[in-house]
Amino acid sequence: MVNMFVDGEWRTDTYEFNDEEGEFDRQPTSFRDRLGTEAFPAESGRYHLYISRACPWAHGASMVRSLLGLEDHVSMDIVDPYRDEMGWQFTPEKDDCTEDSILGADYLGELYTEADPNYTGRVTVPVLWDRERETIVNNESIEVMETFSTAMQELGNGVDLYPEDVREEVDEMVDRIYEPINNGVYRAGFAGTQEVYEKNVNRLFDALDALDERLADQRYLVADGERLTLADLRLFATLVRFDHVYHTHFKCNRRLVSQYDHLWPYVRDLYQTSGIAKTVNVDHIKEHYYTTHTDINPTGFVAVGPDLDFEAPHGRDELPGGPPAELAPTPRGD
Amino acid sequence: MVNMFVDGEWRTDTYEFNDEEGEFDRQPTSFRDRLGTEAFPAESGRYHLYISRACPWAHGASMVRSLLGLEDHVSMDIVDPYRDEMGWQFTPEKDDCTEDSILGADYLGELYTEADPNYTGRVTVPVLWDRERETIVNNESIEVMETFSTAMQELGNGVDLYPEDVREEVDEMVDRIYEPINNGVYRAGFAGTQEVYEKNVNRLFDALDALDERLADQRYLVADGERLTLADLRLFATLVRFDHVYHTHFKCNRRLVSQYDHLWPYVRDLYQTSGIAKTVNVDHIKEHYYTTHTDINPTGFVAVGPDLDFEAPHGRDELPGGPPAELAPTPRGD
Repeated sequence: MVNMFVDGEWRTDTYEFNDEEGEFDRQPTSFRDRLGTEAFPAESGRYHLYISRACPWAHGASMVRSLLGLEDHVSMDIVDPYRDEMGWQFTPEKDDCTEDSILGADYLGELYTEADPNYTGRVTVPVLWDRERETIVNNESIEVMETFSTAMQELGNGVDLYPEDVREEVDEMVDRIYEPINNGVYRAGFAGTQEVYEKNVNRLFDALDALDERLADQRYLVADGERLTLADLRLFATLVRFDHVYHTHFKCNRRLVSQYDHLWPYVRDLYQTSGIAKTVNVDHIKEHYYTTHTDINPTGFVAVGPDLDFEAPHGRDELPGGPPAELAPTPRGD
Repeated sequence: MVNMFVDGEWRTDTYEFNDEEGEFDRQPTSFRDRLGTEAFPAESGRYHLYISRACPWAHGASMVRSLLGLEDHVSMDIVDPYRDEMGWQFTPEKDDCTEDSILGADYLGELYTEADPNYTGRVTVPVLWDRERETIVNNESIEVMETFSTAMQELGNGVDLYPEDVREEVDEMVDRIYEPINNGVYRAGFAGTQEVYEKNVNRLFDALDALDERLADQRYLVADGERLTLADLRLFATLVRFDHVYHTHFKCNRRLVSQYDHLWPYVRDLYQTSGIAKTVNVDHIKEHYYTTHTDINPTGFVAVGPDLDFEAPHGRDELPGGPPAELAPTPRGD
């Protein structure tokens, strides 16, 4: 099921965004401004982030906000993990969900038509909102992550997840993992044919196999593995969801991430980096996928398993490098 | 979707066999005669077995036939793994499928109405057919396994999978694993509510956990673990399908069987027992579940994973006991 605005009117259709070959065709995002510009200068208290705890794209933005210490500078609202035929909604009565503190909207779509009455496109998270101009600055996840890491970085705690000297390498890695992994799980889950599904599952696992090998002797993805960057957060956002939803719900079941020798400790290492665990809500993740995509899970039942312990020791502090001093590991039980 | 005969007429309905609480309600089998009786004396060449390579219940019967060396005494036909709205069918052009060599039927249902023109019930495998009386002797899987192991056993190679001195223990174990495990995977997969699904998944894994512990220091389920019996074949029929279909398709995903310390080597040990591997057709298993139950898998896509090596060394020959001498392990590649 697809629902979206067309010229500002909400439409619900039964077609899928699949191209002629049956490939899932992710629609481009529309608001692409940056902070630190004349129109949108970096300011504390001016911008607001909308996320879903379920969505991996939004998760990247909320992790950057948390790790850079921007919570006091960029406020945040959280939508309901269940997306109905009207799209993402605000249900403050549910655990770890909030009201819309800007417009008091019921649905996130209202923000989009407030920003552009003739908006055409899907209503997605993250959304970066500007209180002053009353519009959406940006709804492209990697650009929100970058704009926080550049324009807003100096407002924060000093952590730099997008250092200038490795920026190109980060960009390359973000690009490299996007299609086969971040988007690859969706391409598998929303494939229109068996052939397309299989092709995407196999490409996904080839990419995971290669990264598992890469992470055998380096702690992080880039900068010789010595520095935590945006690229790691992008990969983490997919991996932390993998065994709970992509493996079973999207049938990406050649292996569990928790069966990989290096990827699984890597996930735990990141999870235990201060500021990340609080951005992960496994209940939201599971509820969203299993209950929202009734075209692939008609019962809407949420899978019980697997039992995963993200807090188990990871042993990766033996490797060179490590998280910034500001982000000491979260003590267990914190 | 349910299809079945009602008073000899084929009906297809959209309701599920779920009781008021949402529990999957397996319908009882109807033909319950035994071999070795006056009506159905044990004879070579008289009886015929119909199975599906996909179905765990039928699999038990085909394993007993194979292990006891009854292939030359009981002929066998194999239905298509895909069950359409007319039920199990014969498609001899497909790999590892046969024609109906008794009636030349297109659908297995024709056997049922041949045996009883007013038959009411589902059309299931296994079916044990009597050429002489032109009727179904028995379609209850455990009874077919038992009747082969008692009345027909002396026609075979001397292997005894249901020895008199442990028969009661075998029966108890068969009963013990039936509801939580053999039928439990279906109760999870076909549950009518989230609550019923969760209850059955948890009961299933509690039972698997207990058996994993039991099999830590004994090779088989009963007779102090020293003898292979029908109970092992019942458990094996579910376990060999588990990671390929029950884990993902029925959402029994707390763990993979291949993640269990003892159950997984146990599965490989049985698989490598001479006569078993040839009864296992993973392609039939995967095709059947994923393509037939479109009410829980609307795309009908068959999951790619996981990669499992049933032929990897199992190390369980260190434990006391072992397969009958007639059933030496199949050399790899046989």
